[in-house]
Amino acid sequence: MIKIGIVGGTGYTGVELLRILAVHPDAEVKCITSRSEAGMPVADMYPNLRGHFDLAFSEPDSAVLAQCDLVFFATPHGVAMRMVPELMAAGVRVVDLSADFRLKDLDVWAKWYGMPHETPEWAQKAVYGLPEVARDAIRQAQLVANPGCYPTAVQLGFLPLLEQGLVDPSRLIADAKSGASGAGRQRNIGMLHGEIGESFKAYGASGHRHLPEIRQGLSLAATGPVGVTFVPHLVPMIRGIEATLYAELSEPADFDRLQALYEDRYKTEPFVDVMPFGSHPETRSVRGGNQCRMALHRQEQSNVVIVSSVIDNLVKGAAGQAVQNMNIMFGLDETQGLKAPALLP
Amino acid sequence: MIKIGIVGGTGYTGVELLRILAVHPDAEVKCITSRSEAGMPVADMYPNLRGHFDLAFSEPDSAVLAQCDLVFFATPHGVAMRMVPELMAAGVRVVDLSADFRLKDLDVWAKWYGMPHETPEWAQKAVYGLPEVARDAIRQAQLVANPGCYPTAVQLGFLPLLEQGLVDPSRLIADAKSGASGAGRQRNIGMLHGEIGESFKAYGASGHRHLPEIRQGLSLAATGPVGVTFVPHLVPMIRGIEATLYAELSEPADFDRLQALYEDRYKTEPFVDVMPFGSHPETRSVRGGNQCRMALHRQEQSNVVIVSSVIDNLVKGAAGQAVQNMNIMFGLDETQGLKAPALLP
Amino acid sequence: MIKIGIVGGTGYTGVELLRILAVHPDAEVKCITSRSEAGMPVADMYPNLRGHFDLAFSEPDSAVLAQCDLVFFATPHGVAMRMVPELMAAGVRVVDLSADFRLKDLDVWAKWYGMPHETPEWAQKAVYGLPEVARDAIRQAQLVANPGCYPTAVQLGFLPLLEQGLVDPSRLIADAKSGASGAGRQRNIGMLHGEIGESFKAYGASGHRHLPEIRQGLSLAATGPVGVTFVPHLVPMIRGIEATLYAELSEPADFDRLQALYEDRYKTEPFVDVMPFGSHPETRSVRGGNQCRMALHRQEQSNVVIVSSVIDNLVKGAAGQAVQNMNIMFGLDETQGLKAPALLP
Amino acid sequence: MIKIGIVGGTGYTGVELLRILAVHPDAEVKCITSRSEAGMPVADMYPNLRGHFDLAFSEPDSAVLAQCDLVFFATPHGVAMRMVPELMAAGVRVVDLSADFRLKDLDVWAKWYGMPHETPEWAQKAVYGLPEVARDAIRQAQLVANPGCYPTAVQLGFLPLLEQGLVDPSRLIADAKSGASGAGRQRNIGMLHGEIGESFKAYGASGHRHLPEIRQGLSLAATGPVGVTFVPHLVPMIRGIEATLYAELSEPADFDRLQALYEDRYKTEPFVDVMPFGSHPETRSVRGGNQCRMALHRQEQSNVVIVSSVIDNLVKGAAGQAVQNMNIMFGLDETQGLKAPALLP
Repeated sequence: MIKIGIVGGTGYTGVELLRILAVHPDAEVKCITSRSEAGMPVADMYPNLRGHFDLAFSEPDSAVLAQCDLVFFATPHGVAMRMVPELMAAGVRVVDLSADFRLKDLDVWAKWYGMPHETPEWAQKAVYGLPEVARDAIRQAQLVANPGCYPTAVQLGFLPLLEQGLVDPSRLIADAKSGASGAGRQRNIGMLHGEIGESFKAYGASGHRHLPEIRQGLSLAATGPVGVTFVPHLVPMIRGIEATLYAELSEPADFDRLQALYEDRYKTEPFVDVMPFGSHPETRSVRGGNQCRMALHRQEQSNVVIVSSVIDNLVKGAAGQAVQNMNIMFGLDETQGLKAPALLP
Repeated sequence: MIKIGIVGGTGYTGVELLRILAVHPDAEVKCITSRSEAGMPVADMYPNLRGHFDLAFSEPDSAVLAQCDLVFFATPHGVAMRMVPELMAAGVRVVDLSADFRLKDLDVWAKWYGMPHETPEWAQKAVYGLPEVARDAIRQAQLVANPGCYPTAVQLGFLPLLEQGLVDPSRLIADAKSGASGAGRQRNIGMLHGEIGESFKAYGASGHRHLPEIRQGLSLAATGPVGVTFVPHLVPMIRGIEATLYAELSEPADFDRLQALYEDRYKTEPFVDVMPFGSHPETRSVRGGNQCRMALHRQEQSNVVIVSSVIDNLVKGAAGQAVQNMNIMFGLDETQGLKAPALLP
Repeated sequence: MIKIGIVGGTGYTGVELLRILAVHPDAEVKCITSRSEAGMPVADMYPNLRGHFDLAFSEPDSAVLAQCDLVFFATPHGVAMRMVPELMAAGVRVVDLSADFRLKDLDVWAKWYGMPHETPEWAQKAVYGLPEVARDAIRQAQLVANPGCYPTAVQLGFLPLLEQGLVDPSRLIADAKSGASGAGRQRNIGMLHGEIGESFKAYGASGHRHLPEIRQGLSLAATGPVGVTFVPHLVPMIRGIEATLYAELSEPADFDRLQALYEDRYKTEPFVDVMPFGSHPETRSVRGGNQCRMALHRQEQSNVVIVSSVIDNLVKGAAGQAVQNMNIMFGLDETQGLKAPALLP
Repeated sequence: MIKIGIVGGTGYTGVELLRILAVHPDAEVKCITSRSEAGMPVADMYPNLRGHFDLAFSEPDSAVLAQCDLVFFATPHGVAMRMVPELMAAGVRVVDLSADFRLKDLDVWAKWYGMPHETPEWAQKAVYGLPEVARDAIRQAQLVANPGCYPTAVQLGFLPLLEQGLVDPSRLIADAKSGASGAGRQRNIGMLHGEIGESFKAYGASGHRHLPEIRQGLSLAATGPVGVTFVPHLVPMIRGIEATLYAELSEPADFDRLQALYEDRYKTEPFVDVMPFGSHPETRSVRGGNQCRMALHRQEQSNVVIVSSVIDNLVKGAAGQAVQNMNIMFGLDETQGLKAPALLP
């Protein structure tokens, strides 16, 4: 049994880790920390966990965490950055679900996250945990930076095109939409049901923290700089991200070949599902599941490739991918604990 | 492996059976029938099942069904009634999720379902499959009538009071609320998102088919006639039932004792969770899970007992309870395939 | 033009007053106060008001309010109580949408609102502003206590039965359901979309502040004490209340006569719509409108009368009823500014 | 009083016309037709209209329609096309909310609507009723083709850029999202609450009927061919469209100047609201109102102009724009009947 610690367990990614780990046969949650809720039984905050966990939230304690095999950080940015060195020294492995170790350019990180990075050496050593790109490195990694939700949906959707150099990398557009759980569980008037129910809007259209992460990942795939416009939107639902991606073919292409390219690129991936050409993936088809489903489209004789890509932001976009990374790191079946179909309807 | 057949698999209870059975270690779905969609791969209709089932819907075929160990009926009323005798003769066991075998008084059945019952002898032999009441009979049964969704939430909430004779059985009120999936997946203008989204209403307030089923179950518990008023309501959500139950204490009672009574009544039940006195169970705490959670309330010095009881109408109210019944019938761990926590948020 | 002041305009009842008054031909909003947002243009907070109001929120200023003809309080409880005497002295009329002047028994008030009442003489002088009961007193009143949202739906639904003494007044049950806007616009994790979307629950089942207000109103109608059980629930929608009411007939009654009684009781009421017997009022049928729609039901030969009553909690349950009261107080057409049909779909 | 006829009144645009006209001081609805519901009182289908209309649906009758001053068609495509010539001959003016007269290229029309156009001469004479572009022509028109919902949001958002030739017209992208009412009120399993609630998806991504209408309008603005990619999406809400538009500046531009350009273009428009640069228009800010609100965005030093544009699909995207057109045609104040603020929250 892998001994698990979770730092910062009161948010939606924390409870989602617990939901998944509750039935994971090879992992056992030893502690879950929360400064604000220390002492409260986990199941009092999250009644779906009644009968599954006797744990209570505890104050973060390095000594306790150091006895874990793996620690997940489900904290706001800035926390993991400070706690990681001690855990690394103790030989503990870490999957950080926050943004602390996602970017390699720490000036960019400092600009978007409003503070200097305090452990730059670990930022460089961290492996960006997108299994479809970096499975081998993840296997060896002591510190994995779990990708952001939007970046997961956007990168998986664009990757085959960029890796093959088929599109103009300077003209990428990602129009993405997310359910409200992406904003976390915080005292935020703007996320009240009365404010966002039965309404739709763009947000962060002039710039969002996930833009540099997306750009970093796409540049690696394209082996060169990319120009990407990324606009997130808020959908009046709880879970799910859909990203509609637009790219311009460098030269006229056979769309059958593009479809084959996508199917081939992901044919061994347990969690990427390329649907038939012209399908419309629904976020509900991945609700609670770790899949990324996608489909390609073309309009009349246009040379614009359209990709629609969906994930559950809390699963493949956060806790599920984190457990997938754990499975890889510990040599388990990569789908362990992640086999159940999505909850539809 | 238990060989499973599902008759009528295109509705929400059908897909829910598949979702649960997809990860059930002891059951294998051999066939799933649909006259209207015969030939269509199941995963084309329900993309959450892509990668889980290669099955296509098939025409109902008695010979094929007769080779199953267990057949689930997820059909409109009137279908199982006609097909059951042949399966019984073939030694197949059946869990009928429709209403065909739930009522013992077939005049009442005929009145509410608008047709005469065609196999009255099987209606009498069928075991009403509420495990918390009839576990032993279910274990032996060849034919189990899976309870309705509202009747499950209402009966479990009232049972301890009636079994102990603590309340006036002539003055029971059940005000119940359900998500839209309870109406099934049918060509029904009244269930369009544009019609029921962002709105709330009572329906069937002058009489609903689940009323006689509730009355039958409560009368058995009370060992005598009961007077129950039952009003269902439609909530703009997909899954979940909440029933708020009102009963008048026959004599002044100690509410601490009532709480203890409930906890005691259900302490060995794997799927009934009595929350602390004064709690407010949320339907999301059982979304996708097979639990029934409930809590007791009292207002000032009133002698009205208030019980709030929640289930997922598609799980404990349909497919989950059906699998629970299957587990009992085949001597498996009763929670097999039903262990995952509910999906919250 | 009636010169209007609004104290506490940042909440949902404040913006709703503005929405209604924006097109009221006889009223002009002169000031709207908010300590926290002083200086912010109203339309910056509520973009639906762009082009309708140039006003900015201002610090509450007695001198400015004293120049108004009418001041609406849309504040948390405890505020109007303290400011009203000065306005009364200045001859200003007040409609208080908060709970400060709704209860006559100030011990009860103090118990439920957690503070002593500071202006008991005004609590006694205030007219409880349910026009269907107290129109003449409202016309003369200087201080009107605008009813709570649940109490409006519940009282209007029960009134004819109690006024005529047809039901057992000791056995009233009101099972009520509200959209999320009823909880106001506050920094409240429990009201996040991620917490309450796609879920349903009871709350305040052991006791809610609207219970004593309901009891007071129903006792007046019954001219004697009543026993009422009131359980509110939270619906994943923004606007709307539905109350399902249960009462036991004192003697067998002709339901045709009950229907006629309701129709007769409300036939001259511009905002109460008694639908045909057996109808199911939908909250969307009153969304944004000032109507209360209701319908009667009976189950089989039961002697329980069932009434389903719907309102928009922000309109007939708050700002609309406040404007209705203003219209009455100033001798205007009672429907002025409230004539538009509800927004359906 | 303008005498109004409505053909095809049972759908969402029909009821929305009634909702608006119910309080329009200069219009009186004389008849509303529906073959399927002839004889049913309008208020029985749409209870929000109880007390507003005594009308019942009637069989379409040319003689009755011929006595109207204006007939609105709220029918599926193919109906108005056949009925218009007779009304034209009778001197009746028509606003057609269907797609019959929107396109000038009737081969394109035939391709997308699956039938030949039967009255091509009227297709040429019809005025495309986007008041912000064709107010003078509308004033004189006998036949107005009311624009589609998406085309309204998309055209208004792109117009200033194209009219001024500031962007590459071959690289326009419109990623649009709509609530469910856009699909109408039809017996459609795919639009059940159980199917689309709590989910998000693209649809028509390989081609949608509104694409040629958008292309036609944008080409006129650009005075030349345009290349536009248009992908619609379905949002789990009832009303509202948001379109996020992407265009590439032909040469580096000053975004302050772009903002001024938009403000200037629409400064006299009563129903177009250009919000401050960097704002995020919410669909709720126009719910039930006739506004189109929009805002501009730029990401870092990108030369992509981003425009977010919102409307209520049933108002500015259908019935409200139709009434705006009526007001123009009959020389009324253009905002008559359309003055109320949107319903927020």
